[in-house]
Amino acid sequence: MSILVVGSVAFDTLKTPYGVREKIIGGSATYFSLSASFFTDVRVVAVVGEDFTAEHERVLTSRGVDTRGLERAKGLTFHWGGEYGDNLNEAKTKFTDLNVFENFNPQIPQEYADTDYLFLANIQPGLQTQVRDKMPRVKLVGGDTMNLWINIKRDELAETLKRVDVLLINDGEAKMLAGDQSLPRAARKVLEMGPKAVVVKHGEYGATIFFCRGAFGLEAQHPFRAPALPIDEVHDPTGAGDCFAGGFMGYIASKPELTPLVLKRAMFYGGVMGSFAVERFGPERLQSLTREEIDCRFDLFRSLTHIH
Amino acid sequence: MSILVVGSVAFDTLKTPYGVREKIIGGSATYFSLSASFFTDVRVVAVVGEDFTAEHERVLTSRGVDTRGLERAKGLTFHWGGEYGDNLNEAKTKFTDLNVFENFNPQIPQEYADTDYLFLANIQPGLQTQVRDKMPRVKLVGGDTMNLWINIKRDELAETLKRVDVLLINDGEAKMLAGDQSLPRAARKVLEMGPKAVVVKHGEYGATIFFCRGAFGLEAQHPFRAPALPIDEVHDPTGAGDCFAGGFMGYIASKPELTPLVLKRAMFYGGVMGSFAVERFGPERLQSLTREEIDCRFDLFRSLTHIH
Repeated sequence: MSILVVGSVAFDTLKTPYGVREKIIGGSATYFSLSASFFTDVRVVAVVGEDFTAEHERVLTSRGVDTRGLERAKGLTFHWGGEYGDNLNEAKTKFTDLNVFENFNPQIPQEYADTDYLFLANIQPGLQTQVRDKMPRVKLVGGDTMNLWINIKRDELAETLKRVDVLLINDGEAKMLAGDQSLPRAARKVLEMGPKAVVVKHGEYGATIFFCRGAFGLEAQHPFRAPALPIDEVHDPTGAGDCFAGGFMGYIASKPELTPLVLKRAMFYGGVMGSFAVERFGPERLQSLTREEIDCRFDLFRSLTHIH
Repeated sequence: MSILVVGSVAFDTLKTPYGVREKIIGGSATYFSLSASFFTDVRVVAVVGEDFTAEHERVLTSRGVDTRGLERAKGLTFHWGGEYGDNLNEAKTKFTDLNVFENFNPQIPQEYADTDYLFLANIQPGLQTQVRDKMPRVKLVGGDTMNLWINIKRDELAETLKRVDVLLINDGEAKMLAGDQSLPRAARKVLEMGPKAVVVKHGEYGATIFFCRGAFGLEAQHPFRAPALPIDEVHDPTGAGDCFAGGFMGYIASKPELTPLVLKRAMFYGGVMGSFAVERFGPERLQSLTREEIDCRFDLFRSLTHIH
């Protein structure tokens, strides 16, 4: 089945202990699309500027991503500059040139009306709500957000959260959103805000999905934890979270029914895709990846965690 | 089979957001012994002072722990005071009265000479080495250490590490010991110092065991990760690491052979015992625990991580 992602397609200028890259393609919708494209049909709604060439677009289309929703606006493409220190856990933003992204007003092409799944990548919560309301027929809505919106757009975000089935955030965001330093308590408070499930990403320690009681036909309310791969050399963590979301949502969208088993396997595929993303700069690794490698790593993730 | 732990039996005065406790029994050997006692026969070598009463000792003996190696010295028992802030991740030491522990010179009773397994809890590395060399016949040696010894007794610790089969430390200690901020790289460097395996404890994110190539008959060198339980209310994290070690080593000692399967299950039992320890103050929870509860939580840990 098809999945639509609404988010940013951007340029990134990155510096990590392993090197530098100038103006390479990035953005949440790019990472999500490339990652999900290994599992299902992906459609993208985003805005780019006049400096976004046909060659840049081919990064997406060569993976089969449907870019009819990619709006071309007058001006320059969103450009983010960031630097990672030695432990590569946190990016230090050097500059954020929003450019055409500043006035992004997502339009859903008519051809996308039959989309089955929706992922609201990290954009202003007000825009997330608008998009979600334009897609009443989707089976499941995934969403992301960030500290900035939790701080300055809390009311708008509360509206969005009522419209999101599965929220994917990291530990710090979950704790900030809930105002609670205990992660399981924070997760429960977030679930009271609307989502049926919340996936909390722990970086190198994996991710945990917490469920609302009775959601997805689950008998018990126990969380489920997927590992991350202990990776010697993280070259560039940019996009790892969006790749996790792409693997998670993409796998779900590839299955006819959303069972607890599908959800658990989706958590593993999320971790797998995140682990590939960080091995090289930007989306480089995703461009050379095969489904066979993905399933091979899925088996490795299983052997990392399963007793038998 | 039997396991001997050499470490501290102490009094703790604790403050956490959930309350305070004055001079309750604690210490690495206490937590380890109580935890391991659910799996196998435990013997303890430690020193206490004149303020350590028969009632205190019954905390150990009522769980079947063999206390013939508990030396009574003139003076007061080691007394540690600590306080935990809101997120309960790190203890702030208020006082450390070493008392009789300052001149601890571990003596192994003759009756302990046939011990099968040895755990060197966190004491001066020089003493760990002495003890290990007095027990040449043990099948497997586990060990712990801390930042203090990594800083001020690095050479002595290097000697200890040559004599330890499985080292159990936390993320920060592993990175400090190896001088490397990448955890998998740090683990590999620690393995080059002597141990066949290193268990790195990640607190609420679980623990990972890394292996030397070919150790324990493992074909591949992949690490194995066990979860921690997402616990709403951590009342007191004191002793969680020693309880992990007790479950891990105790389970290993309970099995006739050390197979990869036993090691993986031991990682889970370690996490299980750590998760009980933090539910109540000091060793309170361990004193009321049953093996049935332990195995029930083992199944929960499995369901938290296993796809099927």
